[in-house]
Amino acid sequence: MNTEVCARFGIEFPLFAFSHCRDVVAAVTNAGGFGVLGAVAYTPERLEEELRWIDDHVNGRPYGVDVLVPGKIDKAAESGGGPAAMLAAIPDEHWNFLIGLFEKYDVPLPDFEKAKRANARGVGEQVTAKGATELIDVALAHPIGLIASALGTPPPIMVEKAKAAGIPVAALVGTSEHARRQVAAGVDLIVAQGGEAGGHTGEISTMVLVPEVVDTVAPVPVLAAGGIATGRQMAAALALGASGVWCGSVWLTTEEAETPPHVKEKMLAATSRDTVRSRSRTGKPARQLRSAWTDEWEGPDSPGPLGMPLQMIVAEGAMRQITKIAESGNPGARQLANYFVGQCVGLMNTVKPARQVVYDMVDDFANAVERLNAITSAD
Amino acid sequence: MNTEVCARFGIEFPLFAFSHCRDVVAAVTNAGGFGVLGAVAYTPERLEEELRWIDDHVNGRPYGVDVLVPGKIDKAAESGGGPAAMLAAIPDEHWNFLIGLFEKYDVPLPDFEKAKRANARGVGEQVTAKGATELIDVALAHPIGLIASALGTPPPIMVEKAKAAGIPVAALVGTSEHARRQVAAGVDLIVAQGGEAGGHTGEISTMVLVPEVVDTVAPVPVLAAGGIATGRQMAAALALGASGVWCGSVWLTTEEAETPPHVKEKMLAATSRDTVRSRSRTGKPARQLRSAWTDEWEGPDSPGPLGMPLQMIVAEGAMRQITKIAESGNPGARQLANYFVGQCVGLMNTVKPARQVVYDMVDDFANAVERLNAITSAD
Repeated sequence: MNTEVCARFGIEFPLFAFSHCRDVVAAVTNAGGFGVLGAVAYTPERLEEELRWIDDHVNGRPYGVDVLVPGKIDKAAESGGGPAAMLAAIPDEHWNFLIGLFEKYDVPLPDFEKAKRANARGVGEQVTAKGATELIDVALAHPIGLIASALGTPPPIMVEKAKAAGIPVAALVGTSEHARRQVAAGVDLIVAQGGEAGGHTGEISTMVLVPEVVDTVAPVPVLAAGGIATGRQMAAALALGASGVWCGSVWLTTEEAETPPHVKEKMLAATSRDTVRSRSRTGKPARQLRSAWTDEWEGPDSPGPLGMPLQMIVAEGAMRQITKIAESGNPGARQLANYFVGQCVGLMNTVKPARQVVYDMVDDFANAVERLNAITSAD
Repeated sequence: MNTEVCARFGIEFPLFAFSHCRDVVAAVTNAGGFGVLGAVAYTPERLEEELRWIDDHVNGRPYGVDVLVPGKIDKAAESGGGPAAMLAAIPDEHWNFLIGLFEKYDVPLPDFEKAKRANARGVGEQVTAKGATELIDVALAHPIGLIASALGTPPPIMVEKAKAAGIPVAALVGTSEHARRQVAAGVDLIVAQGGEAGGHTGEISTMVLVPEVVDTVAPVPVLAAGGIATGRQMAAALALGASGVWCGSVWLTTEEAETPPHVKEKMLAATSRDTVRSRSRTGKPARQLRSAWTDEWEGPDSPGPLGMPLQMIVAEGAMRQITKIAESGNPGARQLANYFVGQCVGLMNTVKPARQVVYDMVDDFANAVERLNAITSAD
């Protein structure tokens, strides 16, 4: 296809694939799209390993890295006091609620003391500016074609380092105000993400947000994100003025995806009504499968989710244990288990290789354009 | 344009315009679209008058009528006890909260006793099956080309009467499950309305809902609704598989619209972030401008909205008074005033004749299709 984004990023289809799974990233890149590895769950060492693997599998084709750099995080995490300060800021009430959940759903308790410390070091620190900077340094040492900031305006240091390395910077936005701010901060590619998207998301829908953002930041190119899992939707996004699309959810039910089998099953069975925008996993509103986990944290007995990254420290270790136990068939753990996914989960009903998802989207896109032409040609 | 819907409904552009304003309905129909009059606020006598006016102004061109027939309403309204039973079911707490609001915002109190009775007779009764049937009878005596049910499955009597008169029936749906049920009930045209829409609405976005519903009910034609105010969005909707679009919000800032001037000003100034889905006006979730009214009813001191139609009885008379007083410049009334509108209010920034909105949408649609062709033609 012939869009500015295809020319600029050296790709055949303006389809950007966000995934935490290196196999998906490489498969999409090799199929003519642009894979973007979500780095938030990785330590710098692990990220280095993943990117080396990708380099070995894409034969010089373009791919990118996405780092989560929240604009605003809990002050205990910002204070520089490190993992200890973050742990000290988590009330006992929250740990007790979590322990109560494990008991209620009959899931064996993990070693909380150990998990707490590991999470505070891992997840907790990575979303601080210091943690993100380390990931950015690792990413920029590889031949990446894009670095993306998933939450809020990228910090000046990210933009500076990327510009010095000649790497374009992308940023996800949920409002046209944010888009304006991102462009002012030096962002080269805006991802306008509607509220139907999986993960951290706002409330304006893709149908409304994309034309608003396109008009606001022109001539800066805009990718549409949120709800997009088919070629018809890709055609719709381009009709709205986007220069391409950014998809995350659709890869979660591919053959390559790292999604745990029982969560994949939940996704294949889910309808578009089975997601909820909840703060219960990260502390910021993020769309995910509705499960006993989201119901309990949003319910009347809940102490309420903490801010980011404190809620991540509470939730991520617990969810790792829940996921592991769910695989063994534990019914309570299966009720609790979930994962981030958008409303388009209702359109994700078969397991395919990621490569095939790309080819099917391209076919479906062509059919949609043909249908539109048939509608207008008789005028 | 060449769609099944154009051929079937005898129109040039598959653009359906929902409006409570007869001038908008006639203007859109005369411009080559299909105007649909929202009848919910009318008594049977008033509806008769409005339809006679439209008949006199469209020269035989097609238009339709939309009746609100909720699937589930408060049992006090269903009981057959009439206005008195409905008034008796409204707790004093709600009237007191309302009086408190008028005092807090320094708005002169209306004659509540009079307003209560009038509303219970008017709004309250029209959403009962009996009230809706009277409106349907009035509508079917006119040369209408469509009758639509705005909430829930149309009652069998509506479908029977319409079929007997040879009039197609449309229904608005917010999930593919509802769409399946509507088709089973005999509905001829499904309006898949995304959660970004103004008025009563669900939570699935237009981008996700439209392809889901299209696949679910094929070959029954589907109109896309929710967030659509431009031709680019109309092209997006058709790319998603819709046979046309159904727009409501965009007419509210036209020259003809009955929208009170200060509410129109609020809409012109609003961004896509300035709406909220709230039960505070009708008792069912409906998207509207966020204002002091929605904040107060959703706030900590609120007794919480009642069900439909009890909340309508409480709210509609009050909002009439607020609107009237706001026009005189009262600042508190201006803070409270609002109206139903979708997220596309952010795209509604100029006042134009309704006819011009149609022509601009058609132009913008053609440009979007051309852009899509340019993207694919170079392959």
